[in-house]
Amino acid sequence: MSAMTPAERVEAAYDRIQSADRPEIWIHLRPRGEVLAEAARIDPALPLAGLVAAVKDNIDVAGLPTTAGAPTYAYRPETDAPAVARLRAAGAVVLGKTNLDQFATGLVGTRSPYGAVRNAWDPARISGGSSSGSAVAVALGMVDIALGTDTAGSGRVPAALNGIVGVKPTKGLVPVTGVVPACYTLDCVTVFARDLRLARTAAEIVEGPDPADPLSRAGTQLPPPPARPRVAVPAGRHLHGMADGWRTAFDAAVARLASTGVEITETDITPLLQAAELLYGGAFVAERYAAVGAHLEKHRHLIGTDLDPTVASIVLAGRDRTAADWAADTARLAALGAAGRALLDGCAALLTPTTTWHPRLAEVAADPVGANARMGRFTNFANLLDCASLAVPAGFVDGLPFGVMLTGPAFSDRALAALAERLANPGLDLFVVGAHLTGQPLNAQLVQAGGTLVGTARTSGGYRLHALATEPPKPGLVRTAAHAMPGTGAETGSGATGIEGEIWRLPAAGFGTFTAAVPAPMTIGTVELADGRQVKGFLVEPYAVEGTPDITRFGGWRAYLASV
Amino acid sequence: MSAMTPAERVEAAYDRIQSADRPEIWIHLRPRGEVLAEAARIDPALPLAGLVAAVKDNIDVAGLPTTAGAPTYAYRPETDAPAVARLRAAGAVVLGKTNLDQFATGLVGTRSPYGAVRNAWDPARISGGSSSGSAVAVALGMVDIALGTDTAGSGRVPAALNGIVGVKPTKGLVPVTGVVPACYTLDCVTVFARDLRLARTAAEIVEGPDPADPLSRAGTQLPPPPARPRVAVPAGRHLHGMADGWRTAFDAAVARLASTGVEITETDITPLLQAAELLYGGAFVAERYAAVGAHLEKHRHLIGTDLDPTVASIVLAGRDRTAADWAADTARLAALGAAGRALLDGCAALLTPTTTWHPRLAEVAADPVGANARMGRFTNFANLLDCASLAVPAGFVDGLPFGVMLTGPAFSDRALAALAERLANPGLDLFVVGAHLTGQPLNAQLVQAGGTLVGTARTSGGYRLHALATEPPKPGLVRTAAHAMPGTGAETGSGATGIEGEIWRLPAAGFGTFTAAVPAPMTIGTVELADGRQVKGFLVEPYAVEGTPDITRFGGWRAYLASV
Repeated sequence: MSAMTPAERVEAAYDRIQSADRPEIWIHLRPRGEVLAEAARIDPALPLAGLVAAVKDNIDVAGLPTTAGAPTYAYRPETDAPAVARLRAAGAVVLGKTNLDQFATGLVGTRSPYGAVRNAWDPARISGGSSSGSAVAVALGMVDIALGTDTAGSGRVPAALNGIVGVKPTKGLVPVTGVVPACYTLDCVTVFARDLRLARTAAEIVEGPDPADPLSRAGTQLPPPPARPRVAVPAGRHLHGMADGWRTAFDAAVARLASTGVEITETDITPLLQAAELLYGGAFVAERYAAVGAHLEKHRHLIGTDLDPTVASIVLAGRDRTAADWAADTARLAALGAAGRALLDGCAALLTPTTTWHPRLAEVAADPVGANARMGRFTNFANLLDCASLAVPAGFVDGLPFGVMLTGPAFSDRALAALAERLANPGLDLFVVGAHLTGQPLNAQLVQAGGTLVGTARTSGGYRLHALATEPPKPGLVRTAAHAMPGTGAETGSGATGIEGEIWRLPAAGFGTFTAAVPAPMTIGTVELADGRQVKGFLVEPYAVEGTPDITRFGGWRAYLASV
Repeated sequence: MSAMTPAERVEAAYDRIQSADRPEIWIHLRPRGEVLAEAARIDPALPLAGLVAAVKDNIDVAGLPTTAGAPTYAYRPETDAPAVARLRAAGAVVLGKTNLDQFATGLVGTRSPYGAVRNAWDPARISGGSSSGSAVAVALGMVDIALGTDTAGSGRVPAALNGIVGVKPTKGLVPVTGVVPACYTLDCVTVFARDLRLARTAAEIVEGPDPADPLSRAGTQLPPPPARPRVAVPAGRHLHGMADGWRTAFDAAVARLASTGVEITETDITPLLQAAELLYGGAFVAERYAAVGAHLEKHRHLIGTDLDPTVASIVLAGRDRTAADWAADTARLAALGAAGRALLDGCAALLTPTTTWHPRLAEVAADPVGANARMGRFTNFANLLDCASLAVPAGFVDGLPFGVMLTGPAFSDRALAALAERLANPGLDLFVVGAHLTGQPLNAQLVQAGGTLVGTARTSGGYRLHALATEPPKPGLVRTAAHAMPGTGAETGSGATGIEGEIWRLPAAGFGTFTAAVPAPMTIGTVELADGRQVKGFLVEPYAVEGTPDITRFGGWRAYLASV
């Protein structure tokens, strides 16, 4: 995957780690020499050969201690968690274990006796958590891939705050064998990378059932979204109280997705937000007590030193919930889930901001629980309601990354990636002047390919238009010799007016299939517009123009058709 | 579905109810005149037109009180539960509401202030519960169909003890809207009938999602079992401590199923039995407290009169379970479920006795909890592990019904019915004398049709065997004229020895497809065996015999082949 050798990549990674001066990222960093020796043995044919990886320190790596962010809790596993083993089997080299909100309880990245993990872009801000070290290690280019976990949003919030991709797979796709449980029935192993495709590749590599994890499962992925999918966005009232500028950034992301042919539908997501509140407000927090409550009870004297006070108070409160509370919350969750699914019926995904604000470290220190609670508005429901989710960067606000999230039903992982691809690369523009114009006979081909009308435009003056002898009738756009080199100055041909047409935006795949189906004598080439832009557009082979009427004087195909 | 009019069926039902003197079956019986008026309006074209039905009194019927077996709890719903509405829309007439173990908590049928429901076959014995009244009303012929519910086994244990069919559908297939919850996430609405096909027809009629029940769901049924499916049975050690004679009866049922071409595999079902123990032994009992705990707390002074003391003690104990217990039990259940599924991998179903004994009313009164606990060994895990299950009669022991149960994964409902059909009707025998014999060229056709070899047999003396000119070579069996009427006495033809052949047993469908594929000149007709039995077997059209060698003297096809 790279021109560098595995050893060179490892050297570069350690150099970067040293120069970055972010010691709080790592709870355990392996010695450079040991990793170099391992890298030297990598089979270069493997899919992740020589890519360097970090592992959140609640996931077992053989021979390294697993602390879950609590020194007292540490144990030294003899085997890799399946997610780690699969990354390694695919050629990745694990550099070490990363810091986290203790026991993966938090969305801030500050709840750790190993230190608060500072944001990759602004060290005065939080990294987000709980997979804080993994996300920042990826964002700072120390590693290519990092594993995190996600119960409330720990694999997505830090992705958003550090400007990287966070894949939270469908629950059970990646086994949680060898992972310290936060909420056992809700935990997911996640993947961070700077690039969507690498993140997805790594996620698919770590997927697959494991006999030791009874909740792990295989499943058939939902089909890819149609050319013109519908995507839900929260109704405006659910977007209140976000950081300054974030609403505008989100609206821009929505518009960008819409420009690729996605139908956006504003949706009441109240049931999802109510489900989100159940994660900490309901009895489910008792799963955290079931997981590590006994440890906290035994080491109460270390609360404030080795054990984070905020984490301890949250986990220990889980002791007081009754099973009848759990039963009632389960029933309520089922009702909220059904209501949520009904509201999203027909939508390929829900697009939301990933989180709602990006606090400074001091703001979280001043109000550890309140600040954290604001982070999970859009993430907390996903695992409770068995959703796949994908956090992707969506630009910057005031110089800091802004991120959005696509969330869909179980096994929509690949469909979400296809939608995210549109968002990252909203499409390719095509200039049409004839039978593909709105209302003309072949326009439906553009629509079927997922195209949307961007607007009307005119060519520069250097084009002539001919009425070809094709069936259906089409015009042929031909650049005049005087304009073969842009900027030669001699304005001839269509003169100042140019030829009228439309710009359509197609997803890359749609553009490809459309182009592949264009029959002779038509070609797709480069067209210069009146405003100087170069766009792809319909041209014609010269042989088809010979002896046909020059209709340049009409200024466009519609005007010509109206004349005959 | 009947030669009687709906009104005549209703009259007959009320006559039977009056003559049976089993008042404890009914908590509310509608006035005869009111039901007759309703029956007069039934469209005779409906699939259940005029069939009479009973509804367990924890399921809403519009206008009748719903008591759940507790007079203090009663409310009067304005609408039918969807299961009831769908039965009625299909033409069934609801006679009234039936007695149950209070709050559907019990498998005995004695825990009700409306009286213990006595067994249909022996009034000194329990009916089984909790759907006691519904099961006995069906068993005594008062109604054709009855609705029950099933959390631990309440729709199956009383079916077994009263010699009828109990369908426990996949969880969520029948909405629990309008049903008083026992354990909300585990409850199923069930169907009783005397006949498997009617029970399945009614079950499919009441299936279908309901927006008001968030746990209701549709789903694709698993494919029907193959011609030679594998079915698991518990290893012998799991069958200990059953009532006298029950092990023998179960073994007979297993042998009967095996005789239809089912491969029986003895399986360690320890994980399933451990899951079963979690239903009452674990935190899940808190769901009962969440459902009716507040009612019991408020009416503690009525415990011993309106409120059953055993039920109250079980439900109120649910108050003391913690949510962390629930979390731990959920994790344990997940592990047990995965282990159970692994052990049953490749099996179409698990065949078990439905329950383990059939106590007298006095035995249950002496030890209400202990006697009950023995009833649920094979039923309690089904809903916890998301299984479909089907209880069917399997003969009698000491004059009382014995029942077995087929349990499979979610959405195996129809597959289980197909297996139960084999058990009820283990197959059709076919006598073969030539190319279908074991080891002969066409034997595989019988195997593919699901056939199993019952044994060898000989025809009576009145047959001749010819070597036909077919390809592959086949013999033709022809009854001699003197024996055209059995018992005419003149023993000619093959003489005392008869013609040797094999009896194969095929499932009905396999027999049908096999017969339909038999080419001329072969026919399937009736063959008289040496012991006087008449079985279906291969014969041949007369034209094909003319001029062919008579090989009767060899006594069979194999001996003839050995001679040539």
